[in-house]
Amino acid sequence: MKIRVGIFGYGNLGRGIECALRQNPDMELVAVFTRRDPSTLSIGTPNVAVCHASEVEQYKNRIDVMILCGGSATDLPEQTPELAKNFCVVDSFDTHARIPEHIARVDAAAREGGKVAMISVGWDPGMFSLNRLYAGAVLPDGKDYTFWGKGVSQGHSDAIRRIEGVLDAKQYTIPVDAALEAVRSGVCPELTARQKHTRECFVVAAEGADLSRIEKEIKEMPNYFADYDTTVHFISAEELKRNHSGIPHGGFVIRTGKTGRSLEHNHVIEYSLKLDSNPEFTASVIVAYARATLRMHREGMVGCKTVFDVPPAYLSPKTRETLIKELL
Amino acid sequence: MKIRVGIFGYGNLGRGIECALRQNPDMELVAVFTRRDPSTLSIGTPNVAVCHASEVEQYKNRIDVMILCGGSATDLPEQTPELAKNFCVVDSFDTHARIPEHIARVDAAAREGGKVAMISVGWDPGMFSLNRLYAGAVLPDGKDYTFWGKGVSQGHSDAIRRIEGVLDAKQYTIPVDAALEAVRSGVCPELTARQKHTRECFVVAAEGADLSRIEKEIKEMPNYFADYDTTVHFISAEELKRNHSGIPHGGFVIRTGKTGRSLEHNHVIEYSLKLDSNPEFTASVIVAYARATLRMHREGMVGCKTVFDVPPAYLSPKTRETLIKELL
Repeated sequence: MKIRVGIFGYGNLGRGIECALRQNPDMELVAVFTRRDPSTLSIGTPNVAVCHASEVEQYKNRIDVMILCGGSATDLPEQTPELAKNFCVVDSFDTHARIPEHIARVDAAAREGGKVAMISVGWDPGMFSLNRLYAGAVLPDGKDYTFWGKGVSQGHSDAIRRIEGVLDAKQYTIPVDAALEAVRSGVCPELTARQKHTRECFVVAAEGADLSRIEKEIKEMPNYFADYDTTVHFISAEELKRNHSGIPHGGFVIRTGKTGRSLEHNHVIEYSLKLDSNPEFTASVIVAYARATLRMHREGMVGCKTVFDVPPAYLSPKTRETLIKELL
Repeated sequence: MKIRVGIFGYGNLGRGIECALRQNPDMELVAVFTRRDPSTLSIGTPNVAVCHASEVEQYKNRIDVMILCGGSATDLPEQTPELAKNFCVVDSFDTHARIPEHIARVDAAAREGGKVAMISVGWDPGMFSLNRLYAGAVLPDGKDYTFWGKGVSQGHSDAIRRIEGVLDAKQYTIPVDAALEAVRSGVCPELTARQKHTRECFVVAAEGADLSRIEKEIKEMPNYFADYDTTVHFISAEELKRNHSGIPHGGFVIRTGKTGRSLEHNHVIEYSLKLDSNPEFTASVIVAYARATLRMHREGMVGCKTVFDVPPAYLSPKTRETLIKELL
């Protein structure tokens, strides 16, 4: 019997989940839940219910794992605890600083319902977190670095769009090659934000807007741009659509560390991702963890879990014997 | 109370374990076991017992985890099941084709003794296996590739040394850059052994030996060299010692895969290692898994386990809360 999955929220991530489920024949999409009017939503899979979010409890016994596709700012802090009372859930909560309080709320709810709730799944937090953990456990005398990009930062793009006179914008975060090379060399450099990443902005301005004022406002924006070397390009709406409509991303987790009688040997562990579609890759990670979530629930576990708690074999549809034979 | 560790076998790997334990303050070395005369063995840690292998049972209640440092050909197939009856054990059994039968024997012994036995730990099998598993679970429509090197292959070096007229030799396995690039591009090439790796040999020949005959014997040696482009350099014993006495290694696990409504998006997951010392890095991985092995034992688990079965958090001495706060 297939794993019955629900999607809660149908934006870029929800559509990515829908695509990823088709690539995993042991899983099936049962229903999509939305806060919009369901009749206005056209989804990509035939014969799947599209329901209003308020109807979700009716699906309590028809869905094995609910995948939450809302945002971390306001959606998930409310939705994950609420849904974890009735469903095994997976979310991609990515506000690093607020993860501990999110865990506390989700854990209480999941225990109340006897469910497993897997939070902060994706690539960062997610696959990158795992690689920081593995590398740190293996090389205790060392230092790890995370670089992001080249890729589109939704938050930074939004910040530019809020500037007066800006019609649209895309911001790319780009790791600095020299910093990557310094890290790989094993010298364990101390790097400022500016030394690690540059920011490149493609901006569509309103006709007659003061371009130099817009550029200045971008470059001096605190937190977002002031601490980085930022380049601003003004382009047409057509060019933005033609060349910058994708959502690529990626990055690097690198740890260097030393071993030996006098710590004379250096080692470099590097994990990197190069992704054509950030939401679709995030969705692919989440779907694998949805499988693990259900398996942990069936083994009697309850409460809030993270990628750190999941035995890797639980992610795969293959049997333990096959995994050992083919991959170990 | 510290985790009490024993080392069974004191070659390159055993010495690596000894060094790694010093980098992990929650662990302590209790005893080294050898099949040689213990009085002939000088180890690097003061106040640690050096015992004959036959005395090992006397340490049954004084050692939490025994780390086996013998070879996969003849040592581990006997030693791991034997020791798993009395100790939680970790080994680095790396004969891929014989892992299933090794697991069966070790599992029976470990269950008999109520112990956990972790097998095939290191970087391949080990960290590379984990990366093949994670990447395959996340990107089901894709293909993975493992490249080894640049690094010293002990087996290939030994094979050259068995040729008449050869006094000493070191063989480097080198991944082919063009093959790496083709894989990263996402075209999923079919690659022969020759297309993936080249082999470079540094050979010290006996005075008056027939160099062209030695070179021919190396290059035509079935399984080891015949399927590869092989380069042979004859050098002096001094040069071999000066430039080729290290044991570096490393490699790459790369998976490319597709997602999207029409599988239109490509993704590249790459994990790489660049290691100054193969045995010391292997030892560092093993020591982290020794910690996990004991934790699984204390939670009541029994039997033979692999890296696929271990929740990542178990590898770290840090608390779950700290891991979540610092690394998730």
